[in-house]
Amino acid sequence: MDHAGARGEVDRVQAFRSYVEAHRERFVSLLEEEVRIPSISSRGENLDRMADWLFSHLEQFGFKAERLETPGAPVVFAEVGPTGAPTVLVYGHYDVQPPEPLDAWESPPFTPTVRDGRMFGRGSGDNKGQHLAHILGVATALSVLGELPVRVKLLLEGQEESSSPHLAWVAAAYRERLAADLAVTSDGPMAAGDRPMIALGVRGVLHFELRAEGPARDQHSGNRGGIVPDPGWRIVEALRVLRDAVGRVRVPGFYDAVRPVGALEQEVIARLPFDPAAIAREFGLREEDVSAIGREAFYRRLTLEPTFTVNAMGAGVIEAQKTIVPATARVKCDMRLVADQDPEAISEGIRTLLATEAPDVTYVAHGFMPPSRTPLDTPWLVPIRAALARAHGQEPVVWPALGGSLPDFVFTRVLGLPSLVVPYANADEANHAPNENMRVELFLKGIVATAEMLCTLGTTGA
Amino acid sequence: MDHAGARGEVDRVQAFRSYVEAHRERFVSLLEEEVRIPSISSRGENLDRMADWLFSHLEQFGFKAERLETPGAPVVFAEVGPTGAPTVLVYGHYDVQPPEPLDAWESPPFTPTVRDGRMFGRGSGDNKGQHLAHILGVATALSVLGELPVRVKLLLEGQEESSSPHLAWVAAAYRERLAADLAVTSDGPMAAGDRPMIALGVRGVLHFELRAEGPARDQHSGNRGGIVPDPGWRIVEALRVLRDAVGRVRVPGFYDAVRPVGALEQEVIARLPFDPAAIAREFGLREEDVSAIGREAFYRRLTLEPTFTVNAMGAGVIEAQKTIVPATARVKCDMRLVADQDPEAISEGIRTLLATEAPDVTYVAHGFMPPSRTPLDTPWLVPIRAALARAHGQEPVVWPALGGSLPDFVFTRVLGLPSLVVPYANADEANHAPNENMRVELFLKGIVATAEMLCTLGTTGA
Repeated sequence: MDHAGARGEVDRVQAFRSYVEAHRERFVSLLEEEVRIPSISSRGENLDRMADWLFSHLEQFGFKAERLETPGAPVVFAEVGPTGAPTVLVYGHYDVQPPEPLDAWESPPFTPTVRDGRMFGRGSGDNKGQHLAHILGVATALSVLGELPVRVKLLLEGQEESSSPHLAWVAAAYRERLAADLAVTSDGPMAAGDRPMIALGVRGVLHFELRAEGPARDQHSGNRGGIVPDPGWRIVEALRVLRDAVGRVRVPGFYDAVRPVGALEQEVIARLPFDPAAIAREFGLREEDVSAIGREAFYRRLTLEPTFTVNAMGAGVIEAQKTIVPATARVKCDMRLVADQDPEAISEGIRTLLATEAPDVTYVAHGFMPPSRTPLDTPWLVPIRAALARAHGQEPVVWPALGGSLPDFVFTRVLGLPSLVVPYANADEANHAPNENMRVELFLKGIVATAEMLCTLGTTGA
Repeated sequence: MDHAGARGEVDRVQAFRSYVEAHRERFVSLLEEEVRIPSISSRGENLDRMADWLFSHLEQFGFKAERLETPGAPVVFAEVGPTGAPTVLVYGHYDVQPPEPLDAWESPPFTPTVRDGRMFGRGSGDNKGQHLAHILGVATALSVLGELPVRVKLLLEGQEESSSPHLAWVAAAYRERLAADLAVTSDGPMAAGDRPMIALGVRGVLHFELRAEGPARDQHSGNRGGIVPDPGWRIVEALRVLRDAVGRVRVPGFYDAVRPVGALEQEVIARLPFDPAAIAREFGLREEDVSAIGREAFYRRLTLEPTFTVNAMGAGVIEAQKTIVPATARVKCDMRLVADQDPEAISEGIRTLLATEAPDVTYVAHGFMPPSRTPLDTPWLVPIRAALARAHGQEPVVWPALGGSLPDFVFTRVLGLPSLVVPYANADEANHAPNENMRVELFLKGIVATAEMLCTLGTTGA
């Protein structure tokens, strides 16, 4: 990049910042309006109302908005910018998690409240503050530059917090309408210390439950023990069918589809920050244990390797001293899966393995989402990285993938696009938890970042 | 036994029955009073209050009652009857299990309620209805006969549901006061179909907990999984250290002290009833599964073989769909032990094995009680069997041992007495479970049985 180019870009970012600063009050009040609408998808509440709010505002900001019907909540689809220009598909969601437990909130979840530079409220960070930053970033670029250098297609769904049951169907059904050069998702928290980050993929997830029956009702372990089946042991034996003594998953073919960690991934990981003290604080670990893991294993195990976690166990009454054979025992587990593992095939593999080796337990799949990856050498990484660096005044970190799960496969696999995850919310946004919040400065920086990203994609893109 | 003798005994039982029938209302209301007092030893609640109630009523019924202090709850000790006569030590307990889960009760656990001929309430069968039947049996014999043919020593402790931590100490400290010819305990359920039964021993118990730590607080399984330790798996791995894949306990020496099943035990078992349909109902099993076990294995596994049961498991929130790595996981287990296994030695064996092979979990022993056996050819079996047969109009069954645990070792080992367990509660008393109950007719029959037993021991005893 030549000096004149750099100069022009610095001026441009400065112009976006000034514009955002001048409209700060209005932009923050728009976010308040969004957070005030309790659009809870798991209860089907206020989804149409939230979609209507978005339609009316998208039209105001120059988008052509459209409602894509699904068997569930409508998808808000909106386009703006010159046809024929590079096209970016921006994904977000307008639904939120339920706010419970209510008494843990310091201010009511749907009464947005700014304290200490943060807007508290359910959905502030996940995902209203993030997709609104994209909408306002487009508006800012349009106002400052008079026109957009790219075409933007905005796809806001209303059931992300219910595992996006219809998103893949929408992508397939509206494939041509959604045609683009790349996809960008802003969701989840930024890196430690609110450093900007880009992730080129996500882990998938398979969430399931095992249930074992004992006697028809709880029985005295002395008067009945030795005769009635023991559901706790049935669960333990089923789990040892699924995972061997050294921690390897026993589902046939489980590891076959795991992509080996390549030189590019290792290079990217080697550049990632590794501060054992900070990680220990965030992960609830001891610093020496984090140091012992080391940078390479830390990022590999967090992003490029599958997991098999026990989320919950329940049998009898754990707080009591009850010597019983409980009537039932249950365990909930999830597996975070990596490219190119197939959650549906693995789910069937678990079902078959248990049917053979632990027929006493019932397997219930609760949901799954495939993993997704975009090659680390995608040309789109360069402009987005540069735009983020300028907007934040700080070089972004690049992760090979997120440890968590997003419906990124819809963009990479269904639509065949390179897809970049660029979170805008603070690392401690407390998404899914009480007192969810978004730092107001990061919301405003997100607006600048989007405006700058669009310009960069328009000038240096494909 | 000659015809005149049998005639006299039949008249005597009839006299006891008439007396009990005449006092039915008063006796049932006394049981209600007892059940109303929530004497929960694991929480140290209302134990003195319960003991005081017993003292005042024992004095009314002609006992000389005394409070034996222990480091925990007081022991209620009471004597009545001629010195120099054969002496029977009757054991019971006035503490109860906690009532949780409360919402599974059809009427409140400490509001005794008679429905369908059963008194529902925590402690109704375990053990208030049973020791009260002994107290009222003594009172009945005294009233009907004017005097007792035996000396009765009543020992009611207040920490049986907390594994009787002080009873052996009490027996050793008050050895002379407790001197007797035999011990009788009424606790636990009668045989299937509410048939009277006598057991000549009990299984012991070792109750313990395993705890595993994960991250300092619950963590998102995607954003943190693969890095933070998984406490659920730590518990599963520790359990597989303790028990192998075919169900054998791996604690060194665990099976060495198990007494082989002798000819006398096999004879006794061969005479026991085996009705798969009835057992299936009582145990909450399918009839074909009970049939498949068969009589010999059924009683052997229930009384003469050890068990290893998972009583409770707890980690995360089993009712929620939370994809987390929970901060902790716990499991509570018990082992029912048989003569001559030593629970303390086995507890140390578990601790050592886990320290070597599963050092990540914490082992906490919650209590233990040794097993106990009285030889099946004890001469006291004959009179007690005859008395029970007359009181119930049905021949009792004789079990080599109970599946459950009672502090019977205190009588057989500490005091060196033959000890017979004679349960008075219905087979489906639901002890330790919600909706615990005692059939009112069995409570009243227990009173008659005690009165008759005392007479039989006095005339045919040692």
